[in-house]
Amino acid sequence: MTKRDFLAMEEWSPEQIDGLLALARRCKRGEISGGMAKKVLAMVFMDPSLRTRASMETAMFLHGGHALCLEPGKGSWTLETDVDAVMDGTSVEHIIEAARVLSRYADALAVRVFPKGTDWAVERHDETIRNFARYSDKPVINLESSRRHPCQGLADALTLEEHLGETHGKRFVLMWAWHPKALPTAVPASAAIAAAHLGMNVTIARPAGYDLDPDDYTAIGDLASRRGGSLQITDDVDGAVDGAHAIYPKSWGSLAHFGKPDAERAGRDGKRDWRLTMDRMRRTAGGKGIAMHCLPVRRNVEMDGAVLDSPQSAVIDEAENRLHVQRAVLLELIGSH
Amino acid sequence: MTKRDFLAMEEWSPEQIDGLLALARRCKRGEISGGMAKKVLAMVFMDPSLRTRASMETAMFLHGGHALCLEPGKGSWTLETDVDAVMDGTSVEHIIEAARVLSRYADALAVRVFPKGTDWAVERHDETIRNFARYSDKPVINLESSRRHPCQGLADALTLEEHLGETHGKRFVLMWAWHPKALPTAVPASAAIAAAHLGMNVTIARPAGYDLDPDDYTAIGDLASRRGGSLQITDDVDGAVDGAHAIYPKSWGSLAHFGKPDAERAGRDGKRDWRLTMDRMRRTAGGKGIAMHCLPVRRNVEMDGAVLDSPQSAVIDEAENRLHVQRAVLLELIGSH
Amino acid sequence: MTKRDFLAMEEWSPEQIDGLLALARRCKRGEISGGMAKKVLAMVFMDPSLRTRASMETAMFLHGGHALCLEPGKGSWTLETDVDAVMDGTSVEHIIEAARVLSRYADALAVRVFPKGTDWAVERHDETIRNFARYSDKPVINLESSRRHPCQGLADALTLEEHLGETHGKRFVLMWAWHPKALPTAVPASAAIAAAHLGMNVTIARPAGYDLDPDDYTAIGDLASRRGGSLQITDDVDGAVDGAHAIYPKSWGSLAHFGKPDAERAGRDGKRDWRLTMDRMRRTAGGKGIAMHCLPVRRNVEMDGAVLDSPQSAVIDEAENRLHVQRAVLLELIGSH
Repeated sequence: MTKRDFLAMEEWSPEQIDGLLALARRCKRGEISGGMAKKVLAMVFMDPSLRTRASMETAMFLHGGHALCLEPGKGSWTLETDVDAVMDGTSVEHIIEAARVLSRYADALAVRVFPKGTDWAVERHDETIRNFARYSDKPVINLESSRRHPCQGLADALTLEEHLGETHGKRFVLMWAWHPKALPTAVPASAAIAAAHLGMNVTIARPAGYDLDPDDYTAIGDLASRRGGSLQITDDVDGAVDGAHAIYPKSWGSLAHFGKPDAERAGRDGKRDWRLTMDRMRRTAGGKGIAMHCLPVRRNVEMDGAVLDSPQSAVIDEAENRLHVQRAVLLELIGSH
Repeated sequence: MTKRDFLAMEEWSPEQIDGLLALARRCKRGEISGGMAKKVLAMVFMDPSLRTRASMETAMFLHGGHALCLEPGKGSWTLETDVDAVMDGTSVEHIIEAARVLSRYADALAVRVFPKGTDWAVERHDETIRNFARYSDKPVINLESSRRHPCQGLADALTLEEHLGETHGKRFVLMWAWHPKALPTAVPASAAIAAAHLGMNVTIARPAGYDLDPDDYTAIGDLASRRGGSLQITDDVDGAVDGAHAIYPKSWGSLAHFGKPDAERAGRDGKRDWRLTMDRMRRTAGGKGIAMHCLPVRRNVEMDGAVLDSPQSAVIDEAENRLHVQRAVLLELIGSH
Repeated sequence: MTKRDFLAMEEWSPEQIDGLLALARRCKRGEISGGMAKKVLAMVFMDPSLRTRASMETAMFLHGGHALCLEPGKGSWTLETDVDAVMDGTSVEHIIEAARVLSRYADALAVRVFPKGTDWAVERHDETIRNFARYSDKPVINLESSRRHPCQGLADALTLEEHLGETHGKRFVLMWAWHPKALPTAVPASAAIAAAHLGMNVTIARPAGYDLDPDDYTAIGDLASRRGGSLQITDDVDGAVDGAHAIYPKSWGSLAHFGKPDAERAGRDGKRDWRLTMDRMRRTAGGKGIAMHCLPVRRNVEMDGAVLDSPQSAVIDEAENRLHVQRAVLLELIGSH
């Protein structure tokens, strides 16, 4: 049997994703205990984390397993990612060896690696997470790569189902938000894929110049129509939030200026009103739409504190659901259930 | 039932503190096993730790639970503490969200946050630890805040009881010591509160200008008299150590110069003889008084190596007792016993 | 009973080492489970790690125990190593207190400390790891000190036995390799000691000026002859690899220039052909000798990627064996088996 990786939601069949969501709901209801005794997950964090680390470690523990946490460049060796490198510089260990070695100690690997380069034409291939998967004999779980954050996407899907009940035909708005830094597109792409999986009518509201990668639009649009939903792109944020059932404000940097911070920053100037306010929340469906976010969120910048503290905020449930969907992913890949 | 936090010893009743100490003694004697299966403690360290981290993690493990360790600004996101912040600077996540999210994964939170500001009038309100408690649905344990280190205080109390037997009416000297840096007042205040809880006659020997916060003096003095002891403040260090049963040398910065390192340093100059030497140990009660310290200690600066290595040193027992009192706190807050 | 430490392979008797290797093989075959319930290992990493941390933590977990991981100067306090220091500088805690305190929380300590000084006459005494052992009441395991890496040595021995079968009289070549930095000698000395333990004919191929410490040569040579093997030193790398059964390319800095990076670097210039290539692998015994390395390895610098990716590479097995030999060491020191 070939090993399975969990690198992107759309690489698993919709039936498999529905199976994970069903298993996550059973975990959340307390129906599944054990299943990972003596199992070890090796996590490699090439970038910071609060929820991901805490929820993966908790997930392993709750089912009898253990999560290792390695931080290359901090407590662990700096990792080289170029497969052909002549390593006479500052990188001490190659991801090829790291992946091979960790797959001898652990039953699965989980890797976080944000885009680091200056060329989107290169970064868009998501080579580092894919090389981890290539060189590991054990399943690899993506904890956010250049292109995808599938554990977040699963949590988003579970949260939408819990808060909206029937999701087919309801309106999900991915709303670009201003932020002091140019952030990656993995989360917005994954959130829109999650909503598309649920058959929602997905609107992406973003200023001109802030399109996701064309392949993301294709993935979102294709999945949405297969599942009975649709995809629309607009720069009319207020029109988009009108009657929305869920709004997911999220910042990302312009791919046109990827790796050019000054040009990218200039493009963001003057867009601070791309922010989720209570005024906008009142314009949602019945005034009762939900506000979502992957967290961490910049309070009063991406989203007002008033929204985050209101009953319409689903962000804490969404964070909690990271735990339950990851329990499902882990049980499916390396556990028994 | 409202959740309980453990933020300061004096916020629990003396009977509750005695209960914790009794439970800690039972833990130390090996009479309590289990009680925290599937329980998770989320620790947030905004400042370094050796004993606290190692003993909390061990405490959870010994009773079947698990401790997560998050380090904001290192492996985890930099945390914003100002509740009204417009987060367009460098802080990535707000403690409000951190507290809410972690209380979904964990059964209790434990937080270390040293004073960071430059204004004691602000820092003295201990807002960050209190906000963690406010925004967490689960019990919060203080692992040292601007004002208190109650787990250390409990360990100090247990150590005093073990070494002195009857503590009522015996003399506890909190002795200011020179140190190359201006340190917080949380430990000295908590140690004096612990001695006051035991009904000891507490002497605080410090140079002029090195008073603890007036509220600390009130808390220590009030508790001491309720418990049959007393509080005295003096600048006569040699007089203070004469006949003492326990000496606790500890450095802290002048609150009058809080946040002004140059002025504060000038005040410390010429005070290097505020140091616990064997000469001073020989002047204790029967020449057999004990030397205490929370650790880490600057050898030959706060306390001579000869004192630390002598049979009169109780510092290693005191450190070990951190483990046992924390087992008691955890079992009381989230375990069964 | 006096406590036992594991600081250097040659400090245990050959029979004890053979016992550890036999126990490691049983662990690897899955014949030993449990044995460390409620046992705690406190690891102190004064330098980075991937394999050591991951494999020790996994070893403890697989047998029911728990490993703490402290990183002085990162999440934990900066440690002072000079036993007589007047600590008025930047070091916050002394290793004396750290060792004493951790031996109260944990059943064993494990310490990594690379050479830090500028004087080999001082560093060669391996004082820091030996002081940890001196001040700890519990067994101390060396996770690589200035002079030795005995867990690596054990893993090297197990790997040689697995790949070569009968090792007596076979040829082991420790081959100096170029590297952009001056590395310590602990690994090459420990690898040669491991091969000597197995009765192999050990050749150390290194350029003039790159001798190991004379005491290392004595330890390797004495052990080799006691065990029926031999030791040869040469600067003819190609002659050395001819007919070798195992080649262990490894870089180390010139001890003659220890602590003088510029002079040391000048000595390394022009030696980049000291590198393990497929050409050299083809000259091994029957063209089938194995390539070994402790990892991390600089790809295409110490060893070509082609060698690392070939069937002759034993480096991943060697890394896996770290786990099994450490399970044996831990079970022997603090477990039941």
